[in-house]
Amino acid sequence: MDRRVPARNPGAVTRRTLLGAVAVAPAAAIAAPAIAAQPCVPRGTGAMGVVVERASGALLVVDQIGRSAVARVTGLGDLSHASVVFSPDERFAYVFGRDGGLSKVDIVEARIAARVVQAGNAIGGAISDDGRLVAVSNYEPGGVRVFDADTLDPVADIPTGSKTIGLVDAPGRRFVFTLWDAGETWIADFAVGAPAITRVGGIGRNPYDALITGDGRRYIAGLFGEDGLTALDLWQDPPQPRRILAGYGRGEDPLPVYKMPHLEGWALAGDRFVLPAVGRHEVLWVDARTLQEAGRTQTHGQPVFAVARPDGRQVWVNFAHPLNDTVQVIDTPSGEVVHTLTPGPAVLHMEFTPRGHEVWISVRDAGRIDIHDARSFEKRAEIAAESPSGIFFTARAHRTGL
Amino acid sequence: MDRRVPARNPGAVTRRTLLGAVAVAPAAAIAAPAIAAQPCVPRGTGAMGVVVERASGALLVVDQIGRSAVARVTGLGDLSHASVVFSPDERFAYVFGRDGGLSKVDIVEARIAARVVQAGNAIGGAISDDGRLVAVSNYEPGGVRVFDADTLDPVADIPTGSKTIGLVDAPGRRFVFTLWDAGETWIADFAVGAPAITRVGGIGRNPYDALITGDGRRYIAGLFGEDGLTALDLWQDPPQPRRILAGYGRGEDPLPVYKMPHLEGWALAGDRFVLPAVGRHEVLWVDARTLQEAGRTQTHGQPVFAVARPDGRQVWVNFAHPLNDTVQVIDTPSGEVVHTLTPGPAVLHMEFTPRGHEVWISVRDAGRIDIHDARSFEKRAEIAAESPSGIFFTARAHRTGL
Repeated sequence: MDRRVPARNPGAVTRRTLLGAVAVAPAAAIAAPAIAAQPCVPRGTGAMGVVVERASGALLVVDQIGRSAVARVTGLGDLSHASVVFSPDERFAYVFGRDGGLSKVDIVEARIAARVVQAGNAIGGAISDDGRLVAVSNYEPGGVRVFDADTLDPVADIPTGSKTIGLVDAPGRRFVFTLWDAGETWIADFAVGAPAITRVGGIGRNPYDALITGDGRRYIAGLFGEDGLTALDLWQDPPQPRRILAGYGRGEDPLPVYKMPHLEGWALAGDRFVLPAVGRHEVLWVDARTLQEAGRTQTHGQPVFAVARPDGRQVWVNFAHPLNDTVQVIDTPSGEVVHTLTPGPAVLHMEFTPRGHEVWISVRDAGRIDIHDARSFEKRAEIAAESPSGIFFTARAHRTGL
Repeated sequence: MDRRVPARNPGAVTRRTLLGAVAVAPAAAIAAPAIAAQPCVPRGTGAMGVVVERASGALLVVDQIGRSAVARVTGLGDLSHASVVFSPDERFAYVFGRDGGLSKVDIVEARIAARVVQAGNAIGGAISDDGRLVAVSNYEPGGVRVFDADTLDPVADIPTGSKTIGLVDAPGRRFVFTLWDAGETWIADFAVGAPAITRVGGIGRNPYDALITGDGRRYIAGLFGEDGLTALDLWQDPPQPRRILAGYGRGEDPLPVYKMPHLEGWALAGDRFVLPAVGRHEVLWVDARTLQEAGRTQTHGQPVFAVARPDGRQVWVNFAHPLNDTVQVIDTPSGEVVHTLTPGPAVLHMEFTPRGHEVWISVRDAGRIDIHDARSFEKRAEIAAESPSGIFFTARAHRTGL
């Protein structure tokens, strides 16, 4: 690592981690005052990132250019299904834990800047386009809570009377989310003061997840209670729900909900979206303009994530247990699998460098992150990590819906 | 500003600027050794940027969150038509001057990290997708020169026997550029060692500028010697030139070349590109998939830049002299002008924050940068600058062709 953080935090219980960084216990970190300027090596943060170490409740702070880990921050609670968003300056990672914990991690100083436990059971969050508001979607209690991105002080509480899923940011200081029980999508507009809520009904039975397209225009919800998905065009006012891909879903052969794919896995490749089929060994191609199916590609297993290389020319796919030691690479124009890798046991996530020259792969049960050249497929480096799952690079700060 | 850079640079001639930053004279900066760690305030660089101060050969370093200037770096030579690209870590700005100067500016320490004068007359540059190579396109002598992004040491010299224009980066450690005299586009592939050059003929008579689409797939050259443009699909191997928009160009009423619009002005808005018409008071809409014309919008003057808000929902347009005190905002779905601003004399450039909540506008002859809310159009702040022209935010580091 290129720097160490001196233990300057008076009230904090600290300990050195494997990487020599200082981990600050949450309680102490919350009490700690903002720290003053201290010796450090000037650096840019555009090529940094974090890896979720689920088993140990830690974040590994990484550097894409050095292909290395630079620090570890512990004390983040239950990080199963954890997700991360970044502040616009790419300094702070907001970590959404399954236990309702919301942690603000300073990746430059490798410390917890703030942390609150805001609910009993949460499922993901988002940051507003101006970087001022962080929102969290909750199961228990249902609804969405919104916090000041600087202080994590509460700003707004939006009860929904339902488990709330598919929370995303939308352009114009808006958040969009969906109610599992009521089959409604709500748009909360924070453009001026208290949020103006637009409720859109008729989304369908038991929406379980949703995504927003990279331009922030289309919001698409997956349905657990019926086949197909529901699309909203956020350029409409109010948006009218439209059913798409009627054959997409649990089909005749219902699957347990934990096998439903994460819709964040949708990726734009050329003129098409590519998405994991539900319970089938294939990915679907969907025309990005009409949202009609445009073909399928047979794959090694049930796809979990289908991630397009940033130029859209290829799509990398990982798979569900027990076939989760493998990654396949699909050529976008032909829809053919052109390469297969077997990184090792439990490939959980893949993240491309922002312009797509390399891809990082978390291989949980091997305790490794593998870094491959995205064109030659050669392995460039590997990094030791404790049961790594999600990989999040700071470039996400500049994109909608990530 | 939030920090000052101590004058630690032994051999350097330094002076304080208006903003209290230290400017390092180029010669001294080149001689200066890499500096050691020094006191600084930890910060992220994802919301920083630079503004070209053309008249004084300086860069103003700015902070989007503070809506402020934080430092000024002088000694950059002739910055007329200067352009800027950023290192992947968003710490270094590579400045391409018209006088052939290539400067590497450290925006964290507000100093020139390296500078070379690599040709007599240059026109723009690019950085490879892995951030390791910086390429410059030259008029005198013609051709492209490629430098190590860390040291600015020469890596490759690609003579073309022609004025060389339209240099862009393409995915896969490639650069693409076009020959004014020969009507050829060359693709230089640096994937392994010495560049492999692919020459594509039949581009047309006197290509004067070119662009690459955001996904790095389509390279489009404008022609000075005839109407229309030529498009290459870089997913083809080898790419076949295709004429598009036959009516687009100087038409029956030839215009001097200095009025030809910069094709970098092309922007993707929804399913269409919007581009400035040549010599007419209108913008053209082009279907992004077919590259066929899809409509026109009448504007206040001859458009110079038509810049889509990052969500594509609106397009902001500035105009050529003498109507260059005005900015118009066009609604994408309807193609109608929905708002007109008159920031002041010589509006030269507009840059959106990465997720589009605000837009920065350089008003050269007022010595001002205006910052507007991108939805309410209200002015949020203004920053004094010396004859500001181009505005470049660090988020460009993560995008192709910028």
